[in-house]
Amino acid sequence: MKALVYHGVTDIRFETVPDPTPTDAGGAVVRIERTAICGSDLHIYHGQMNPEPGYSVGHECIGEVVETGSRVGRFKVGDRVLVSGVVGCGECVPCHAGTVTSCERGFPTVFGTNQGLDGGQAEALAVPRADHALHAIPDGVSADQAVLLTDILPTGYLGARDAHIRPGQDVAIVGMGPVGLMALMSAKLFGPARIFALDSVPERLAVAETLGAIPCDVSGDVQTQVLEATGGFGPHAVIECVGADASIQTSLALVRRGGFVSVVGVSTNMAFPFPMALALIKGITFHIGVCSVPEFWPTLVPLIAEGKLCPETVFTHRMGLSEGADAYALFDSRRDGVLKVLLDPSR
Amino acid sequence: MKALVYHGVTDIRFETVPDPTPTDAGGAVVRIERTAICGSDLHIYHGQMNPEPGYSVGHECIGEVVETGSRVGRFKVGDRVLVSGVVGCGECVPCHAGTVTSCERGFPTVFGTNQGLDGGQAEALAVPRADHALHAIPDGVSADQAVLLTDILPTGYLGARDAHIRPGQDVAIVGMGPVGLMALMSAKLFGPARIFALDSVPERLAVAETLGAIPCDVSGDVQTQVLEATGGFGPHAVIECVGADASIQTSLALVRRGGFVSVVGVSTNMAFPFPMALALIKGITFHIGVCSVPEFWPTLVPLIAEGKLCPETVFTHRMGLSEGADAYALFDSRRDGVLKVLLDPSR
Amino acid sequence: MKALVYHGVTDIRFETVPDPTPTDAGGAVVRIERTAICGSDLHIYHGQMNPEPGYSVGHECIGEVVETGSRVGRFKVGDRVLVSGVVGCGECVPCHAGTVTSCERGFPTVFGTNQGLDGGQAEALAVPRADHALHAIPDGVSADQAVLLTDILPTGYLGARDAHIRPGQDVAIVGMGPVGLMALMSAKLFGPARIFALDSVPERLAVAETLGAIPCDVSGDVQTQVLEATGGFGPHAVIECVGADASIQTSLALVRRGGFVSVVGVSTNMAFPFPMALALIKGITFHIGVCSVPEFWPTLVPLIAEGKLCPETVFTHRMGLSEGADAYALFDSRRDGVLKVLLDPSR
Amino acid sequence: MKALVYHGVTDIRFETVPDPTPTDAGGAVVRIERTAICGSDLHIYHGQMNPEPGYSVGHECIGEVVETGSRVGRFKVGDRVLVSGVVGCGECVPCHAGTVTSCERGFPTVFGTNQGLDGGQAEALAVPRADHALHAIPDGVSADQAVLLTDILPTGYLGARDAHIRPGQDVAIVGMGPVGLMALMSAKLFGPARIFALDSVPERLAVAETLGAIPCDVSGDVQTQVLEATGGFGPHAVIECVGADASIQTSLALVRRGGFVSVVGVSTNMAFPFPMALALIKGITFHIGVCSVPEFWPTLVPLIAEGKLCPETVFTHRMGLSEGADAYALFDSRRDGVLKVLLDPSR
Repeated sequence: MKALVYHGVTDIRFETVPDPTPTDAGGAVVRIERTAICGSDLHIYHGQMNPEPGYSVGHECIGEVVETGSRVGRFKVGDRVLVSGVVGCGECVPCHAGTVTSCERGFPTVFGTNQGLDGGQAEALAVPRADHALHAIPDGVSADQAVLLTDILPTGYLGARDAHIRPGQDVAIVGMGPVGLMALMSAKLFGPARIFALDSVPERLAVAETLGAIPCDVSGDVQTQVLEATGGFGPHAVIECVGADASIQTSLALVRRGGFVSVVGVSTNMAFPFPMALALIKGITFHIGVCSVPEFWPTLVPLIAEGKLCPETVFTHRMGLSEGADAYALFDSRRDGVLKVLLDPSR
Repeated sequence: MKALVYHGVTDIRFETVPDPTPTDAGGAVVRIERTAICGSDLHIYHGQMNPEPGYSVGHECIGEVVETGSRVGRFKVGDRVLVSGVVGCGECVPCHAGTVTSCERGFPTVFGTNQGLDGGQAEALAVPRADHALHAIPDGVSADQAVLLTDILPTGYLGARDAHIRPGQDVAIVGMGPVGLMALMSAKLFGPARIFALDSVPERLAVAETLGAIPCDVSGDVQTQVLEATGGFGPHAVIECVGADASIQTSLALVRRGGFVSVVGVSTNMAFPFPMALALIKGITFHIGVCSVPEFWPTLVPLIAEGKLCPETVFTHRMGLSEGADAYALFDSRRDGVLKVLLDPSR
Repeated sequence: MKALVYHGVTDIRFETVPDPTPTDAGGAVVRIERTAICGSDLHIYHGQMNPEPGYSVGHECIGEVVETGSRVGRFKVGDRVLVSGVVGCGECVPCHAGTVTSCERGFPTVFGTNQGLDGGQAEALAVPRADHALHAIPDGVSADQAVLLTDILPTGYLGARDAHIRPGQDVAIVGMGPVGLMALMSAKLFGPARIFALDSVPERLAVAETLGAIPCDVSGDVQTQVLEATGGFGPHAVIECVGADASIQTSLALVRRGGFVSVVGVSTNMAFPFPMALALIKGITFHIGVCSVPEFWPTLVPLIAEGKLCPETVFTHRMGLSEGADAYALFDSRRDGVLKVLLDPSR
Repeated sequence: MKALVYHGVTDIRFETVPDPTPTDAGGAVVRIERTAICGSDLHIYHGQMNPEPGYSVGHECIGEVVETGSRVGRFKVGDRVLVSGVVGCGECVPCHAGTVTSCERGFPTVFGTNQGLDGGQAEALAVPRADHALHAIPDGVSADQAVLLTDILPTGYLGARDAHIRPGQDVAIVGMGPVGLMALMSAKLFGPARIFALDSVPERLAVAETLGAIPCDVSGDVQTQVLEATGGFGPHAVIECVGADASIQTSLALVRRGGFVSVVGVSTNMAFPFPMALALIKGITFHIGVCSVPEFWPTLVPLIAEGKLCPETVFTHRMGLSEGADAYALFDSRRDGVLKVLLDPSR
């Protein structure tokens, strides 16, 4: 079959790889119907993670079950399924509760990151622990919507949930990339009075405004803008969706006394200069973490099915899997108004 | 001055009463700008509460401070204010936290119920503990919106909050009268997937549908309808806004295993036949209570000011205070599509 | 093998029944090491449930795995295990989270209640869905302690948890039978200032006092006693462990405004006369439910292993399984200071 | 009157200062009965805060009201009172709820830190906003216990509360100084299975062990010790009570995936090297803040009155106020087994 394979910095190739087979009796093989490129894939693309090349990439995909191991109980060939981008052991207490990122048995692992699992930007994918890593795609959820349920919508929702937004409060979201937009859609579920959307890209701010947020251009004095709009107090909650030092600092500077900062941006800094003395005086709660994707399916699937969440608007470009190299280059360029690229193996 | 006075069953009169003065050094007098008739006023109207006649009625009003006692610190003459329908001592821990219905010192008391406080369906009202019972009306909140902040919007919000709705869940609301509609608007703040709105009046169901709910006519087999729509499980949360035995029973019958029933309807039954054995098997949480109005102002005022809540659509009729007797008769009749009647002393 | 079989009102017999085999590929057979008689078994004993006789009884037991179906993954022959008294499907979201009483697939079922599962007061027991219904007995937990983890300690803990006790608050527990004592031990984990223990049996009140509670004899005017001790307010939380109408009424009468009533007593009343008007004025939260036993093992097992909970003190009598008829009669009599009877098949 | 005055690095003098008078109509004067030296006073002692000398110090004190302004409503001359170490405006929503550290009007301020309020290590103290900053000392609370309610017991309790400990979990507490011991006593209120107490001073570890904790000497490889004892996972919650970079790092290193780190140690670092990438993988919640003392009185006062908390054991030395210079030197030396020094103006 064909898959996108990482061969070095900015070198993604569409090439033939061995056909997948179930990893063990609990595994399944899924024929991929849709896949997408994640912002964290760009870390790979730029050689910042797992530099040894030669592995297939991608962890956002959906498709149809085409083979199952003998111990798979919940799925059968022909089922259309979501594939969780992150996989736990499926047996420990955290995994049972859906919080696979707290897996107690050596997991979790992310597909397509050279940690033992192949990538989902491929024609098919072997999924271990299928009973826990898959979820049936219900009526009312389109393929485009479904692929967003495998990582970035749950990630954005995690950011909003752990910001502990209560009705009537003010929220700031730092970064209006794809995850930031998912966080924005998710934050609205918690009834805030206002959402301040921070970014420097005009197109992204425009999308945020369309979604009901107040656009705040970080090219200007965004801190003064937000503080003035909030009577000098700052927002009750800040969701950080970039992971860069500067945007985490902005989040800590903006948040109100007694407030929450929730980071879902990917930081690789092991010595971020945290303003502890300021945080002490403010009295803040800070959360950072990777998303346990399956934990949020019972919440998010009905919201999409009922039309309460329309995440698919984030897709600005739709390309074939064979165009993967161009798709990475486009997404990395931030040009042409690109927000999120959908890859369709059937094109 | 003039006020509406209860003189017996269905006998409300617009008549002259003594001008109010501050009850003590902490009290204030408010000239009434808008007032409204509450569903619970109909209990008085029908002689079901405090049958001894001769007292002024009404507990939903806003206006302008025209006199203050010497110890009032937060308000001055000329301030436009909300008046909480329910008043606590203002000094104990629950009152400080805003939960005046748990007042530890003999309060709370409701205006216009012959419990020691005059009624707000009047040209002016003496408000004790003004620093705690009043709240400035901010820019962006209209007079019509403001009067709903003095009782029924906070009450509907209490119903929704204590139903512990989480994003993606299903909710049923029993009763689409004014409080039910406030509960519906409030429930949407918690991100549910679906809201089932139960009533028998077509106009009310139509309003609920306009607000995004699924109308369910209780004249039909509403229990089957809701259970079928929820896979046989029932909604995760039910908000009861009537107070009648039948509608509380419906709520208990509908709710899903492990779910919440939140009652803000006014029940006067001291021996409601609670299906305890069923509740045991289901494992449910049941909340019932009167609203601590000021507790919810920090939440609700910004939502109205930002246009996220538009409760004023509930007013179907606008009359002069002098037309109070007709207004009560109209509201009691449920005719002419009446939902909520606003009284304007200046008309 | 031998088991205790219900043959009619107060007629329990120790007799030969067929040897158990795994119910299906996911089932296991456990050789019983210890079992106990539950207060709810007395409902069977008195013919109040499932009157058709001839079924084996008991749902509190531990033992050793002696046979497993082909799909059992977490246990092997020789493992010593807890058996949950209540069993869910093990596959749905609530079951995965441990809340088996909200099972979405027709379960839960309780062992030994003629609902399709045999009883655990036997030499061996067939356990379906073994991966979910069993739990390894860790070092530091004795056999006597372990058997209490299969129902009544988790049940008492549920009562305490859903009473939402916060440090410094006052708690009342109604009924100092075995479940009430478990609730008392559990309530102490939440840091209350005082626990009022209500019962009429002097020996039970004495045990409660030993455990740090304030004994309150319901033969006297217990309501006045508790209200006076709490400044007229009543306790913040009440845990009801009897299930009788009178004791639920006492709970509702005692609880403070804004407080919680948590019922784990078994009520069979479908028309309990609930004082709804009083509850409305007080503003209370009421919870009733059956315990999802496995949900609480991660919490309770470490507390026993570390010596923070010593539930085994509840056992006042230890008898052989063959003495089952006498054991039921003794437990039912409430004589000889009996609190809880342990049955040992090896005696 | 006499007071302890800061005159420069390690230069504390007992000297005559002007007698205090009420700051305004809402203020009161309290004759000091007991006061204590706080770990944060040592920052002043070493010239690390507000270096301009000449101000009186101390923020932990209790005493008797000897004068009140005309608007003080809750207290009268002769009342024995707690004095909150931190004071808010008393009027805004956070202050009303007790969370004075989120005061919206320019407060809070701490006594004896040269921010406008005199110090409580004196014969008398002027207290602004007396109705909010004071609390009556109830029966059952001794003077020694009371002085700990004015800062360090609430601070330790804050640390424990915001660590979100649930029954059965494991907790580590970093630093067994006076605040650490208060955190230890407080953590026990939440029902943990085990508490690991970290320090390097043998006497402090011995006290911790007496209180039921597992002593862990940070002179050794404490991280390995705690991880091995917790199956490699680490504790669910860590309470940091030192404020030094090293101990915050230890806290972040120890905590389990999905766990909580709660810091009540005083950090003055504006660029603490936070291991963000590690925290991301673990998925942790981090809280740091100063204690809103009055928020915790309703919780802690009953626990002391009922004998459930005995914080007074932390006092190892009792001296006269006139011996203040020696008391500071002793406390700073950490010699003679000193944990906490009580100052009695009447000696």
